[in-house]
Amino acid sequence: MVVAGRKKDPPLAADIRSARERIRPYVHRTPVLTCTTLDEMAGCRLFFKPENLQKAGAFKARGATNAVFCLPEELAGHGVATHSSGNHAAALARAARLRGIPAHIVMPENSPEVKKAAVAGYGAEITFCAPTLQAREDALGEVVEKTGAVFIHPYDEPLVIAGQATAALELLEDAGPLDILVAPVGGGGLMSGTCLAAAMKAPATRLVGAEPAGADDAFRSLQAGRLLPSENPRTIADGLLTSLSPLTFSILRKYLECIVTVGEEDIVHAMRLVFERMKLVVEPSAAVALAAVLAGDFRQHGRRVGVILSGGNVEIESLPWCRPAPGPKSG
Amino acid sequence: MVVAGRKKDPPLAADIRSARERIRPYVHRTPVLTCTTLDEMAGCRLFFKPENLQKAGAFKARGATNAVFCLPEELAGHGVATHSSGNHAAALARAARLRGIPAHIVMPENSPEVKKAAVAGYGAEITFCAPTLQAREDALGEVVEKTGAVFIHPYDEPLVIAGQATAALELLEDAGPLDILVAPVGGGGLMSGTCLAAAMKAPATRLVGAEPAGADDAFRSLQAGRLLPSENPRTIADGLLTSLSPLTFSILRKYLECIVTVGEEDIVHAMRLVFERMKLVVEPSAAVALAAVLAGDFRQHGRRVGVILSGGNVEIESLPWCRPAPGPKSG
Repeated sequence: MVVAGRKKDPPLAADIRSARERIRPYVHRTPVLTCTTLDEMAGCRLFFKPENLQKAGAFKARGATNAVFCLPEELAGHGVATHSSGNHAAALARAARLRGIPAHIVMPENSPEVKKAAVAGYGAEITFCAPTLQAREDALGEVVEKTGAVFIHPYDEPLVIAGQATAALELLEDAGPLDILVAPVGGGGLMSGTCLAAAMKAPATRLVGAEPAGADDAFRSLQAGRLLPSENPRTIADGLLTSLSPLTFSILRKYLECIVTVGEEDIVHAMRLVFERMKLVVEPSAAVALAAVLAGDFRQHGRRVGVILSGGNVEIESLPWCRPAPGPKSG
Repeated sequence: MVVAGRKKDPPLAADIRSARERIRPYVHRTPVLTCTTLDEMAGCRLFFKPENLQKAGAFKARGATNAVFCLPEELAGHGVATHSSGNHAAALARAARLRGIPAHIVMPENSPEVKKAAVAGYGAEITFCAPTLQAREDALGEVVEKTGAVFIHPYDEPLVIAGQATAALELLEDAGPLDILVAPVGGGGLMSGTCLAAAMKAPATRLVGAEPAGADDAFRSLQAGRLLPSENPRTIADGLLTSLSPLTFSILRKYLECIVTVGEEDIVHAMRLVFERMKLVVEPSAAVALAAVLAGDFRQHGRRVGVILSGGNVEIESLPWCRPAPGPKSG
């Protein structure tokens, strides 16, 4: 949220508790799911938080709804704006519609049709732009100037992070104490919220980020001790192409035990396991956390491990393992 | 369960309550899920019971587990047997393993590899046979004679029906009163259990069966007032190829308000909606109930409608809408 002079501190426990009350009427409390087969494969007890079952298909509904419903009346009237090719755009459009204010979304013209349709379906004004960060920021600047809308950043925003934190908060409440909590890292909003929720609710929990090797800016940044954005990230996990912001970097640096990076084949393998064994439709980004658990770099027998499945917005007609379908069966 | 002289009466409310306690340690209490988009499409409020998230991927775990754990010690020692190409086989194999007794499963040799693998994975003895009902029954007779195993019928069995009833019982407890309850009809075990659960818990609930037009023996049998088994059923909903038994026919005849039949395209369309909008992997049979709701034959604005999604065991590499996958994305 661009409000002059506002310093971006991490949200406090009270902010996270407020976020939870504020968004409660508008989001699902997703269940906790378990799977014996995956427990056996991982060598530990896994507790999944399936945010693919969340409103608009991803955890992003939590942060966007919190930010939109936090806006003071005098700022909200001109609506909200963001640039995003993905889940934050749909979540923000949905939250704005719930509050009855306009949403202006800048999307790269090459965004998946399913995501364009989702944003349009929530009644947002869409501005298409070239698929570069510069073009996105330029187009957003024009939109904000023209409309007076408030920019809601997808992750470099304490109110958004406070909203994302509610997923881990619920998981810790419903699953009981966890030894390890794993979430995927893109811009770092979900992982930051996960860290802060654990710090307030279960500070002994070890926090592990999961990142594609092809978009490993968080891994490199934490090793180097300074922000090193991705220059040409490349991964099937299209939700994790973004790089950390100063705010999310500072939170992850403080709380994270480590980042586990995984390869593309590991991601597809994990995604397929979630489809086949858990019967959940997840997007590649969501499978990255399970892939990290299965990579075995930190698994410990008998440990209780929480895994956040971040979303399920994937084109189901072109899944990575698809082949042509057979005809109907007779019996 | 073949026990000499035992008459097959429908299970009583007490049997269903016992089943629920008996299977509680071994099955998931699946959540209740809702979806605003599907509510808008259906014109009513839908409460889904996602039994695709059940152990072994289908409601069948409930009935098979109840039957296996009901067996007296002196009968259980020789194990259990059934013939099935699908979910009952896996559920029975799993339940037998949990009790520590053998499972003998007769499967048609053309069963999907994924289902053969699931049954084998639970440690069952598999006997393959030709893909006809006669061959299945002959092979089962030989297995039972040779091993002394107890035949657990997939649906013509009160203990199995009592187990299946627990799904609707939980749905009625968690969703509150429902005006209509819809479940798919194959052999009629799930629908029979659903009827009996509603009769005991919420007798005002109207009960609707959903059947593929290509396997509509229940529709025709209820119209004719006598059992008319399918002769050459043909549908993508491979879990619904079976025909009613005398027991399930008698229960459905007493409780069911109507059967809605749906075409193959409606089934695939509904299945796709569940994948895209609910982010759940369901098999075609599970989509039949939603297809019936969307068919509009009985939908009523503002009504509260329960829908049982029966299972999720589908070959995910050959979904009906699949096309070849693209490569990884860069950003």
